[in-house]
Amino acid sequence: MCATRCSGSLAVRYGTMRDNVINLQAVLPNGDIVKTGSRARKSAAGYDLARLIIGSEGTLGVITEVTLRLQKLPSHSVVAMCNFKTIKDAADVAIATMLSGIQVSRVELLDEVQIRAINMANGKNLPEVPTLMFEFIGTEAYALEQTLLVQKIAAEHHGSDFVFVEEPDAKTELWKIRKEALWAGFAMEPDHEAMITDVCVPLSRLAECISASKKLLDASPLTCLVIAHAGDGNFHTIILFDPSKEDQRKEAERLNHFMVHTALSMEGTCTGEHGVGTGKMKYLEKELGIESLRTMKRIKAALDPNNIMNPGKLIPPHVCI
Amino acid sequence: MCATRCSGSLAVRYGTMRDNVINLQAVLPNGDIVKTGSRARKSAAGYDLARLIIGSEGTLGVITEVTLRLQKLPSHSVVAMCNFKTIKDAADVAIATMLSGIQVSRVELLDEVQIRAINMANGKNLPEVPTLMFEFIGTEAYALEQTLLVQKIAAEHHGSDFVFVEEPDAKTELWKIRKEALWAGFAMEPDHEAMITDVCVPLSRLAECISASKKLLDASPLTCLVIAHAGDGNFHTIILFDPSKEDQRKEAERLNHFMVHTALSMEGTCTGEHGVGTGKMKYLEKELGIESLRTMKRIKAALDPNNIMNPGKLIPPHVCI
Repeated sequence: MCATRCSGSLAVRYGTMRDNVINLQAVLPNGDIVKTGSRARKSAAGYDLARLIIGSEGTLGVITEVTLRLQKLPSHSVVAMCNFKTIKDAADVAIATMLSGIQVSRVELLDEVQIRAINMANGKNLPEVPTLMFEFIGTEAYALEQTLLVQKIAAEHHGSDFVFVEEPDAKTELWKIRKEALWAGFAMEPDHEAMITDVCVPLSRLAECISASKKLLDASPLTCLVIAHAGDGNFHTIILFDPSKEDQRKEAERLNHFMVHTALSMEGTCTGEHGVGTGKMKYLEKELGIESLRTMKRIKAALDPNNIMNPGKLIPPHVCI
Repeated sequence: MCATRCSGSLAVRYGTMRDNVINLQAVLPNGDIVKTGSRARKSAAGYDLARLIIGSEGTLGVITEVTLRLQKLPSHSVVAMCNFKTIKDAADVAIATMLSGIQVSRVELLDEVQIRAINMANGKNLPEVPTLMFEFIGTEAYALEQTLLVQKIAAEHHGSDFVFVEEPDAKTELWKIRKEALWAGFAMEPDHEAMITDVCVPLSRLAECISASKKLLDASPLTCLVIAHAGDGNFHTIILFDPSKEDQRKEAERLNHFMVHTALSMEGTCTGEHGVGTGKMKYLEKELGIESLRTMKRIKAALDPNNIMNPGKLIPPHVCI
């Protein structure tokens, strides 16, 4: 989680690992054990080594201890769901909700292929259309107030069948749809592998980016599911392909490549939450520029001169200092 | 703001500069112009160079462009004030409010000396006792709901004279008390200089830390005012001294030194929001350990081998690599 600067559906409210680590301890390549901060909520004492290590994918050291910021469990929550004719409408509602200042705790977008997968895997009968799922938290009155405000926003963007539940079992049942989405996806093509990719764009560009990507995905012979942490402008695509067929692997790579380039052309990032590894290393230069990569390499060389920590990851091999 | 990882009264809700910078551009010592990110709300692409530069106090480069995260102006707000017999009670209410999960947008603590200064400077007649000031935001109903919840918490901790206002002019007038606090402080001893210091401790230790510090400050011949971003566990002390008198300067330093050590003994930091510079460099080793400082120095040496960027700041001179 820390090493890849990870996040999930609640990041829209609480931030990513970057925001939730108060302090960490790491063992550096030279054997030094460093503590990066105190237990205070904020500090201006020295370089922010915690943030440098968070997202460094094991290339600067091994994280051995983490102090997390705790959050109070909300006294009440509401889970809601709404259907849309187009994925653009659904994305527009996520954008309008965020811009309205309503503090959702989750807003997740599932495309019609993803809903079809859930129907197939779990014997459900959900309308196979782009769908938004929300969670609202706070006091009972406030959670409900937010729900009704978003219901109104959804109606203004051709949303239909807006439902919401407040009873614990009903909430668990409804949220299960989202929770099981990934595994339901795999069930569509049990013998296939999944290429899971994600990009993240400025919120204002989400509808445009997701629409352009969907157009390509829908035209592909491969089965592709889209699931988005829409409030963060972040979306995942699960591309199912037969690993024994080279043309299918290439097609999956072509789709991934297109989505990344679309996101980068909209001032987005090639990875919102799962890191670079080796697969996305090739996009970093376009996203950040060679000067940025050279700076990373200088830091890497300064802390790990023998290149013993996760060598070959994150910084592309052609970067010279 | 970026270079010192700064923050203020709204940080309790929106975070510090660390949290509000999406992307920045900096000119590094070798002349490279680096871009640290995209415009996406979150990213897992490469080392977090923005966070490394934020708080580096000009020692790694010159920040030339910043992309900030915007926040929606709240549709409604309430400003409230409450008096307490002891500073511990006031701090306890700030702690209990935060732990309750109520999302205040500001919670500021002013000690009785600070209130006296405001009375003197602005011809007011406020009760000269420890005082909490709050701002609550959200929808009209939610802002009011939070206000009443905190009123109840304050009553449970011997709070008195809880007042709150919702009308724009009345809010501006009430918040002016907080806004003019710093300048009012200077007015108490117009010929003196002010040593302004701040520490930050885990929220659970705030009441204890502030009480221990107040005990010392009250016993000093110097005039000392305390003003806290209490929801963050962060407090400032303004120590007024006559710069022509060496014993007064030494006394101010003694008080500062005591507060920092008290904060460090409670797993806090020597600076919550204004950086290290040269004045607090000497506390970094106790706070973070020599291994951490050596790591900082290695990064500094890698990016600024000729030590041309703000030399002599932040990293203590005795740190060798």
